[in-house]
Amino acid sequence: MKKYKILLIIADGLGDRQVRSLNNKTPLETADKPNIKSLLKSSLVGLMDPISPGIIPGSDTSHMAIFGIDPHKYYRGRGSFEALGSGAELTEGDISFRGNFATVDNEMRVVDRRAGRKIDEAEQLINELNSKIGEIDGVKVRFYKGTEHRVSVVLSGDNLSDKISDTDPHETGLKIKESKPLDNSPASSRTAEIVNKLSKKIYEVLSTSEINKLRLSENKLPANIILLRGVAVHRELPKIKDYTGLTTAAVTATPLIKGICRSLGMETITPPGATGGIDTNYDAKANEVINFLKSDKYDLVFLHIKATDAASHDGDVTEKVKAIEKIDNMVGKILDNYSSEIVIAFTGDHATPVELKEHSGDPVPIMIYVPENIIADDIKDFNEREAKKGSLKIMGINVMNLLLNYSNRASKYGA
Amino acid sequence: MKKYKILLIIADGLGDRQVRSLNNKTPLETADKPNIKSLLKSSLVGLMDPISPGIIPGSDTSHMAIFGIDPHKYYRGRGSFEALGSGAELTEGDISFRGNFATVDNEMRVVDRRAGRKIDEAEQLINELNSKIGEIDGVKVRFYKGTEHRVSVVLSGDNLSDKISDTDPHETGLKIKESKPLDNSPASSRTAEIVNKLSKKIYEVLSTSEINKLRLSENKLPANIILLRGVAVHRELPKIKDYTGLTTAAVTATPLIKGICRSLGMETITPPGATGGIDTNYDAKANEVINFLKSDKYDLVFLHIKATDAASHDGDVTEKVKAIEKIDNMVGKILDNYSSEIVIAFTGDHATPVELKEHSGDPVPIMIYVPENIIADDIKDFNEREAKKGSLKIMGINVMNLLLNYSNRASKYGA
Repeated sequence: MKKYKILLIIADGLGDRQVRSLNNKTPLETADKPNIKSLLKSSLVGLMDPISPGIIPGSDTSHMAIFGIDPHKYYRGRGSFEALGSGAELTEGDISFRGNFATVDNEMRVVDRRAGRKIDEAEQLINELNSKIGEIDGVKVRFYKGTEHRVSVVLSGDNLSDKISDTDPHETGLKIKESKPLDNSPASSRTAEIVNKLSKKIYEVLSTSEINKLRLSENKLPANIILLRGVAVHRELPKIKDYTGLTTAAVTATPLIKGICRSLGMETITPPGATGGIDTNYDAKANEVINFLKSDKYDLVFLHIKATDAASHDGDVTEKVKAIEKIDNMVGKILDNYSSEIVIAFTGDHATPVELKEHSGDPVPIMIYVPENIIADDIKDFNEREAKKGSLKIMGINVMNLLLNYSNRASKYGA
Repeated sequence: MKKYKILLIIADGLGDRQVRSLNNKTPLETADKPNIKSLLKSSLVGLMDPISPGIIPGSDTSHMAIFGIDPHKYYRGRGSFEALGSGAELTEGDISFRGNFATVDNEMRVVDRRAGRKIDEAEQLINELNSKIGEIDGVKVRFYKGTEHRVSVVLSGDNLSDKISDTDPHETGLKIKESKPLDNSPASSRTAEIVNKLSKKIYEVLSTSEINKLRLSENKLPANIILLRGVAVHRELPKIKDYTGLTTAAVTATPLIKGICRSLGMETITPPGATGGIDTNYDAKANEVINFLKSDKYDLVFLHIKATDAASHDGDVTEKVKAIEKIDNMVGKILDNYSSEIVIAFTGDHATPVELKEHSGDPVPIMIYVPENIIADDIKDFNEREAKKGSLKIMGINVMNLLLNYSNRASKYGA
């Protein structure tokens, strides 16, 4: 019984609804995708509810489910994943936040939630923060650079809690918020207090930074605060190797996804030019996939493309169609350059309908190509409409088990 | 509202994939089955994941689910079911093993894991063991004959544990293994110690047995040891009468299935000539089914046929097709000889694709014939391909509830 390698491709926010400007077709229906279509002759096709019907998934909860980890049991917030994806090493109990470099006035009122969004000096600012704020009240503080204006902030120490509120007011014109304890535990009071001291300290360091003086002189908004949200306590997750037997490599440029992959013990790589945006280097990512597939080391290669979601949040249907066509090109390149038979799954982590510009709880089309012997579903194209006719009606949590089964790598439950 | 009787037919390992030698058809697609097809005009058809999508079921976990018992909650290993199916009476806490009569050399190295497989003297050997090994360290030891070389061994006493390892090395040339405790409890250490003493004692009794001397003189391998595996602690299961209201009779020749049925409080029968193999007496089993249906006593009659699975494990596609055709004959015979209308479900407990020769996690076709009024699925034949077009997309755990509903025997949940 031949054990196949597995390629899992997730196009973030892939699913969509009828789009008026596409004559009531979806981006998947519109995109030209000869390579993906060529796989349908030996594929199972259908619809997947990443969490369960109607639930709007985050990219984090959905990826956890698809990787076989029940988010209801294990999800503890986004901060830890972002920090891990930005290069942090975390130990059990560390408290992580996602943060934005932002601009506040003298009264701590938010002027710009992103300090202009693209901050060329982010790395220098992070270094300055790390050298000037080592700890607060005996709690170690670390800063990590994310993409654009994004930062991860990690607190390490005893008796910390994630039951505290954000400092991000989520609106311009409002003052930065005080973090408040959300339960009665002393750890929550203490952590909220430390976070409030940290906010002040960050403002002190950044508002007096030479870099911000320079930015002001160039008529740029000073990045003089970090707005904190997405607090999460780090808990070790089960490792994918342990619960599936699969040695796994992940090709992704998105810190959140990279963090999830690292949490599960995957090897992760972001090739040069892979940006997590619509300008990503598709070719470089396809090449990494091919390398990982050719390596003896990996059973499962995971390819994540963020461009579909980025285009959807921007409401840019043309870019979304283009991104899908580029993914199809990647599939073609992978098939041309890796000749062994493999199991290939293609799906999204959720729908992000371009007319909504937000995630939705609609089911997402999924296809699983199996090299031999299966009774393929009689489906002519891969999209939201055709997928309804397929045999798969699954949830995200079923995906890994299906891949293990069809790659001949599953173990029997019972005797 | 007429309450119908229910006939549930499970063909073990029924599901399959495309088979090259059948022109890429499955055994179910190939088999001629006029009687089963005649039921489709008033049937619901579809696919069932016995456990959940992609999970490879054992016959034990799958039958539990189909009978409405969640194996994740109740499954404690195979040993108890085999022992019950071989005639043991078990009480809560008894520890059971599946065992093989095997041949070891003087150094306890395995020469043949089955001592030649068919052991005519098995019953005499079992009697000798039972008379010579009554107990070890105050723990009662019982032996029960299974099919061919198979034995069940039961330990009864206080403070026993199932957290111990097998003695079966699962390979010839290797020494019989010491059972080891798998946790730190005193009960596990004690049980492992008793099992190791038992192995020595079994060897003492069998290697000096007159029967084995005779076997040696006939150039047969001596059955001088029992290799133990599949340890299970007996826990009482809910009774099917209690949770469904159904008085149930089971016609099966397979000790494992018989044991599950007994655990659930079913009346079980193995008619003469029913072997649990491809040579089984189909007619005798059909007759038992007819008798049970005619009896006032039973609401649900369960018919299990192992032949489909046996043929699949042997990779014998011709025998599998033949077995399906014989099952169809049984259905014909039952319909001819029992004139009242009944609900009839036909499915498998899992797929055992003949080209894999192993269980797989593929969904299994299922059909439920309902005598009147239902809107039948528009399905022309009963097989893996057609079942995809049916309305049922269910899991094993849903089957009993569907049967209760369509036989007008279900109770309302809520008011």
